[in-house]
Amino acid sequence: MTDIRSRYRALFGSGESTERIVFFSDAVFAIAMTLLVLDIKVPEVDGGNLGRELLDLAPEYLAYALSFIIIALNWMAHHRKFGVITGYTTNLVRLNFVLLLLVAFVPFPTALLSEYGSEASSVILYASVLGVIGLVQTSMWIYAHHAGLLDASVDEGVYRYVRGTGLVNPAVFALSILVALFIGPVAGTYSWLLIIPASLLADRIFTRK
Amino acid sequence: MTDIRSRYRALFGSGESTERIVFFSDAVFAIAMTLLVLDIKVPEVDGGNLGRELLDLAPEYLAYALSFIIIALNWMAHHRKFGVITGYTTNLVRLNFVLLLLVAFVPFPTALLSEYGSEASSVILYASVLGVIGLVQTSMWIYAHHAGLLDASVDEGVYRYVRGTGLVNPAVFALSILVALFIGPVAGTYSWLLIIPASLLADRIFTRK
Amino acid sequence: MTDIRSRYRALFGSGESTERIVFFSDAVFAIAMTLLVLDIKVPEVDGGNLGRELLDLAPEYLAYALSFIIIALNWMAHHRKFGVITGYTTNLVRLNFVLLLLVAFVPFPTALLSEYGSEASSVILYASVLGVIGLVQTSMWIYAHHAGLLDASVDEGVYRYVRGTGLVNPAVFALSILVALFIGPVAGTYSWLLIIPASLLADRIFTRK
Amino acid sequence: MTDIRSRYRALFGSGESTERIVFFSDAVFAIAMTLLVLDIKVPEVDGGNLGRELLDLAPEYLAYALSFIIIALNWMAHHRKFGVITGYTTNLVRLNFVLLLLVAFVPFPTALLSEYGSEASSVILYASVLGVIGLVQTSMWIYAHHAGLLDASVDEGVYRYVRGTGLVNPAVFALSILVALFIGPVAGTYSWLLIIPASLLADRIFTRK
Repeated sequence: MTDIRSRYRALFGSGESTERIVFFSDAVFAIAMTLLVLDIKVPEVDGGNLGRELLDLAPEYLAYALSFIIIALNWMAHHRKFGVITGYTTNLVRLNFVLLLLVAFVPFPTALLSEYGSEASSVILYASVLGVIGLVQTSMWIYAHHAGLLDASVDEGVYRYVRGTGLVNPAVFALSILVALFIGPVAGTYSWLLIIPASLLADRIFTRK
Repeated sequence: MTDIRSRYRALFGSGESTERIVFFSDAVFAIAMTLLVLDIKVPEVDGGNLGRELLDLAPEYLAYALSFIIIALNWMAHHRKFGVITGYTTNLVRLNFVLLLLVAFVPFPTALLSEYGSEASSVILYASVLGVIGLVQTSMWIYAHHAGLLDASVDEGVYRYVRGTGLVNPAVFALSILVALFIGPVAGTYSWLLIIPASLLADRIFTRK
Repeated sequence: MTDIRSRYRALFGSGESTERIVFFSDAVFAIAMTLLVLDIKVPEVDGGNLGRELLDLAPEYLAYALSFIIIALNWMAHHRKFGVITGYTTNLVRLNFVLLLLVAFVPFPTALLSEYGSEASSVILYASVLGVIGLVQTSMWIYAHHAGLLDASVDEGVYRYVRGTGLVNPAVFALSILVALFIGPVAGTYSWLLIIPASLLADRIFTRK
Repeated sequence: MTDIRSRYRALFGSGESTERIVFFSDAVFAIAMTLLVLDIKVPEVDGGNLGRELLDLAPEYLAYALSFIIIALNWMAHHRKFGVITGYTTNLVRLNFVLLLLVAFVPFPTALLSEYGSEASSVILYASVLGVIGLVQTSMWIYAHHAGLLDASVDEGVYRYVRGTGLVNPAVFALSILVALFIGPVAGTYSWLLIIPASLLADRIFTRK
């Protein structure tokens, strides 16, 4: 009875070529990044000053650039991981789809943030989505390690380095939710800048023997 | 007189490399999935409570996730099929375009469902489109088998397993249309959860010798 | 003085691998086809009958399917051509971009047709854009032949067959403009059905010795 | 301590295959070009003349074609560069993302230009974005040269030719900003036509020994 299923699994359940998965993921990353611009609407000006209106769109430009950069960094992290992942399983494909579901969702919290940047709920939703994206990326890495999908060139130190530095973004986003709730939403958005020093610090910690 | 036409067909009508077809299909799947987010609109709040408004968008989030997951599962089924389809014919390309026409259409019934989830006509349209997508996938599989396009490693048992389990989704969607008509639209949407036990059952039936 | 320019041209002006051009074209075709669905808007119903409103969207569904199918047929024609085009020149890339500029434009005349299907100007714009797309496809084929970019397996008979049958669509679209002007816009849209018998006829003519 | 980091860098920081970067860039270029059409809205006509309304959309068509062509030319320049770039570094990937961030932004200034073509701020924003895109392209070229990423077949003369001609667009766009400010916005848009003679002139200058 399990004969057909096991033959099916041998044929379909896993494979060595991650090319189509990587390609598909790239497409979703690229489309999500490019759709972000649709949230920046041409202002309606009658008799007013267009130049001033364009400057007033600063929150829109910032939200666009922020989400574009964060998705780009996630793409780079994904790119690096799949450079050393030498095969796939159904579970890896599922985890990857959870990641893509969240990445494709980013235009919504981005639009929300650009319109309601001083509301706690916008900041919390944005930080939650982007933080969970980081967690899923790291889960994929841990899963790939345990499932024996990583290239032999990835030693234990490098594995831990990637795993540790991958948790910096989720930690800062989690902290920013607390800041948004207890200090203020705008302070919450500024706290995202902690990603820069925290990344440098994590780099030091996880390269220590 | 048929000479030119037969030389044309030999050159253009079929081929061994399914790469460009697979690539093109992937692009359509990826774009359809990523466009789903455009239906979730930033709420207009003046003086109200943004947090509450964001919670009220639950039907939008659910419809987004539901369609994303169903398209993702269809992509996986497509991916698996083309892993063992070793060539193409004009008819296979046509069937594939019927599939893509329906996949690219999914954002419309999804938007409809998120706005009118308790109306029978939304539920019926959604179930029809997604059900027919499953039927077309299975038709492609049957066609590929009869046209001799499948890899020799696909034996009769595995072929029937894929054909049989591919009909679970269409059957549940057909049933949900009856439920929506005779019991109620919301009950129709809940009946989609039957896909999970029905898949497990089909797995048992089609792995029996 | 022409030394640098000729070295530049030797390096950059042409090449054997059409892969990236084909890939890029596929992406534009796929995105244009998938964006078509954005023109079908969820109806606003208050107290009315949603089922009836959904049936009233028939022109939208038809325009969606029509444009999807015509772009798909153009993709297939493009796919076939690049299957036997063995290299590229800057001029071929330019012609291809003219094609893509028109393909990416199709969502606009499609939306226009679905909203103003009984107006001569919609029908004329639609027929013009789709007809010129066919002309550019055939120009690319003629150019590739004259520039010696076709595979040796394409003999004169097959070359003429592709060139001749590629002019059926433009001819029917040109005729439909006359029909829209002198008989009526709706008759103009029906005349597009002539593509089917005209294709069969052309197939006979161009396979005659 | 730097051991893990250096092993990490050896594994992840650079590589020989630019395929996934090129692919990802192509997707962003293609999506940005195809999204441009969404800015051309079907006119609302009640009792009026649709044909006339369609002619009144001339600025929209022109802005669409202009941006499509400029992005296409940038894609060709990108295509050529990556044809002779034989590897990548993290810095090259970053520069490429700055380019893509700007390319994906183009639909916004395009929409602005088509609606407010006679306002200085539209013309300035458009010229700035497109001019900086040219500068980033040339920076990538200079960087690739200095980082030793160029194929050996690119000699010093060809390198300088590409670098020099790549600065024509930024120079004309910079000039057009001055024209828009001191002569007038419409004159500014006309000054973009200088790209054609300036390109021919640059071709002469940089092919001189």
